Amino acid sequence: MVTLQPKNISKYLKRLRLQIDQRISRYLPRRINKEWAKEFFGKGDYSLRAIQKAVLDPIWNFLDRGGKRWRPALFLLILEALGKDPKKFFDFATIPEILHEGTLVIDDIQDQGELRRGKPCLHKIFGVDIALNAGNFLYFFPIYIFKKNKKKLEKEVYLRALETYLEEMKNLHLGQGTDIFWHKGKQKEISEKEYFQMCAFKTGCMARLAAKLAGILAKKDQKIVEEIGNFAQNIGIAFQIQDDILDIELTGKEREKFGKSFGNDIKEGKRSLMVIYALKKASKKDRERLIRILDKKGKTKKEILEAISILKKCGSIEYAKEKAREIVRESWEKVDKIFLKGKPKERLKELIEFLIERKL
Amino acid sequence: MVTLQPKNISKYLKRLRLQIDQRISRYLPRRINKEWAKEFFGKGDYSLRAIQKAVLDPIWNFLDRGGKRWRPALFLLILEALGKDPKKFFDFATIPEILHEGTLVIDDIQDQGELRRGKPCLHKIFGVDIALNAGNFLYFFPIYIFKKNKKKLEKEVYLRALETYLEEMKNLHLGQGTDIFWHKGKQKEISEKEYFQMCAFKTGCMARLAAKLAGILAKKDQKIVEEIGNFAQNIGIAFQIQDDILDIELTGKEREKFGKSFGNDIKEGKRSLMVIYALKKASKKDRERLIRILDKKGKTKKEILEAISILKKCGSIEYAKEKAREIVRESWEKVDKIFLKGKPKERLKELIEFLIERKL
Repeated sequence: MVTLQPKNISKYLKRLRLQIDQRISRYLPRRINKEWAKEFFGKGDYSLRAIQKAVLDPIWNFLDRGGKRWRPALFLLILEALGKDPKKFFDFATIPEILHEGTLVIDDIQDQGELRRGKPCLHKIFGVDIALNAGNFLYFFPIYIFKKNKKKLEKEVYLRALETYLEEMKNLHLGQGTDIFWHKGKQKEISEKEYFQMCAFKTGCMARLAAKLAGILAKKDQKIVEEIGNFAQNIGIAFQIQDDILDIELTGKEREKFGKSFGNDIKEGKRSLMVIYALKKASKKDRERLIRILDKKGKTKKEILEAISILKKCGSIEYAKEKAREIVRESWEKVDKIFLKGKPKERLKELIEFLIERKL
Repeated sequence: MVTLQPKNISKYLKRLRLQIDQRISRYLPRRINKEWAKEFFGKGDYSLRAIQKAVLDPIWNFLDRGGKRWRPALFLLILEALGKDPKKFFDFATIPEILHEGTLVIDDIQDQGELRRGKPCLHKIFGVDIALNAGNFLYFFPIYIFKKNKKKLEKEVYLRALETYLEEMKNLHLGQGTDIFWHKGKQKEISEKEYFQMCAFKTGCMARLAAKLAGILAKKDQKIVEEIGNFAQNIGIAFQIQDDILDIELTGKEREKFGKSFGNDIKEGKRSLMVIYALKKASKKDRERLIRILDKKGKTKKEILEAISILKKCGSIEYAKEKAREIVRESWEKVDKIFLKGKPKERLKELIEFLIERKL
C-alpha cells in the first residue's frame, strides 16, 4: 500500500507505479487461469490460449513498458486532500489508468505511430486487429473492478461513479475526433480557444475522470466534483502542452527515455499550441511553409527540422511554456480552498508542477 | 410509433428500421447545431465543423446504408411478450443497435474489410483514424440516451441496465479477440464447443444485451433475465451461422443485396462452423488443402472457390443449416413458458425463423 511520504514526487510516482500495476494484475492476471476466466466472463468453454495471446499478452506487453501513472496519483492525492483515506479506495485508482492505457493503444493505431515508450507500438507487434481489440477491451474492463468493489460504496455513489466513467469516455471521442480532423489539415484556422477545448476533451478527460471519481467517492456534491474535474482537466491541458514541447525539444538520452521519436507531432501534422501560435505570429512566408510541411505526406527529416526552426524562431516554445504555467497557476487558485491544508495538498501541488516542468 | 401488426416480419423490420433511425437522429442529429453540442458535451468552444465531419458524417453515412435492425425488434418484441408496452421504452431499443453498428465499423477495420452493406467500409472512405474514432464513439454514445431516459426508470432498474450494457461490451471483446486469433490460423484445432462459445460472445453479446435490457426494463428477476439473455445469445449464434452460409452461397442479385463480397470469410481465413466441420470430416488431402488456403495471404479467386468446394463436398452447408435450426428450436423450448401467449410471441417466433432462413 502507498505510504505518502516520498522524498520527492518522482520517487512517489515510481513506487506508486509498481503498486498500481500489481493491483491491476489482481484483476487482470498476466497468465490466464480457468478460475479467473470463469469469474470474469462467466461459465463457458473458452479457448484460454486465445484469451492469453489475443488479450492478456498485448495488454501486459504495453503496461510493462512503464508510463508515469500520474492519473492514479492525482486520484489518490485528491482523495487524501479531501480528507479521505486513499487506501480504502486504492482499487479505483487503477480505473483511470487502465482507460488511459487503452487510449494510447487506440491513438497509436489512429496516428499510425511507430514508437511508444521506447518500443514499437502495440499494433506494430501484434497487428492492428489484436491491438485494437485489446485497447477497446481496456475501455470496458473497469466494469469488472467497479462490480468487485460495489459493496464498498453506497448505491448512489456507485451510480454516480459509473455515469461519470461513461460520460468522460463519451466526451473523449469528441476531442479525439477533432484532433484527427485537424491533423489532416482539414481546418485552416484554429483558434486557441478551440485548441484548449480539444485538449480538454482529448487529454483532459482521463484526468478529469480521475479527479471526479475522487470527488464522488469522497461524497462531495456535484458542484465541488465539477470544480475538481475542471481543475484536473486543465492539468491535462498543461500536461499536453508540455508533451508537445518535449516532442521537439528533447535529444540524446532524454529522448530515449521519452520513448517517442523526435518531431513525431510535426510528422503527423499535429496542430499543437505552438503551431497555432506560429501560424499567427510568423511571417507570411514562414506561415505558408509551415502549413505546407505539416500537410505533406511523407516528410523528410530536413523538413521536420525546418518546421521546428520556424516554431522556435517566432518564440512558440516560450509562449507554450508560459501558457502551461499560467493554466496551472489559475486552476490551482480556483480549487485551493477545496483541499484541506496539509501534506497531501502540498504533494498534489508538487505533482502538478512536476507534470509541466518534467523532462520525460 | 411501431404498431405491431405487420403482414409479415420483413415488412415489420422495414418499418421499424425507419422508426429506429428516426429516433436515433433525435439523439444524434445529422447536422450539428450549437444547442445539441452544448447539451451533449456541455458548454464549450467546439469546432462544430470538426464534430460534423469527423463524427456525425461517418456515423450517418454508415447508418443510412441500411441493415436489418433486428436487435431493436428483438428488444421490443420481448418487452411486449413479457406484457409491457414497447412504446414506453422505444428509445432504449436504439441502444443495442447503436452498439451493434459500432461493432461493424470496428470489425471492418480489424478485418481490413472492403465492402459493408454494398458500399466501401467506413475506413475506406474516411480513413482508419476517423472510422475508428466514430466506431468507438458509438460504444459510449448510449450513456446519453440512458441519462435522457433516466426518469422513466426506477433507480435499481436504471443501474441494472447500465451494468448490463457494460458487462456485455466487456464480454464482446473476448469473442472478438478469440475470433481474430483463430483467423490468423494460430489455433490448429478448434472444437465446436469453443466455436459456439466464441460466437456467443462475438455475435451473441448485442442480441443478449437487447434481450436482457428488455427483461430488466420489464422488472423481471435476474434468473429470468439470464434465461432470456441466453435465448437471445443462441439466436445470435444461429444468425452468425446463417451469415457464414450466405457468405459462400449467394450469387447475383441476392449477393448485391447482402452487401459483402463473395467468399469474404474464406479470404479472411475465418474458422466458421462449416470450416470446423470440414476439418473433421474431409479427407486428409482436402483438409490439408483447406488449411493451406485459409492461412495463405492474398488468396486468388480460384483458391477461394476451391476452399468452398471442399466445404460443399463434405456436406458442411447442410450440417450448418441443420445446426442453426436445432439451436433455435432448443432455445425456444427453454423460454416458451416465459413469454405470454399472443401475437407478440408469435411475431417473436417469426423474427427468429426469419433470421435463420433469410437470404440476405
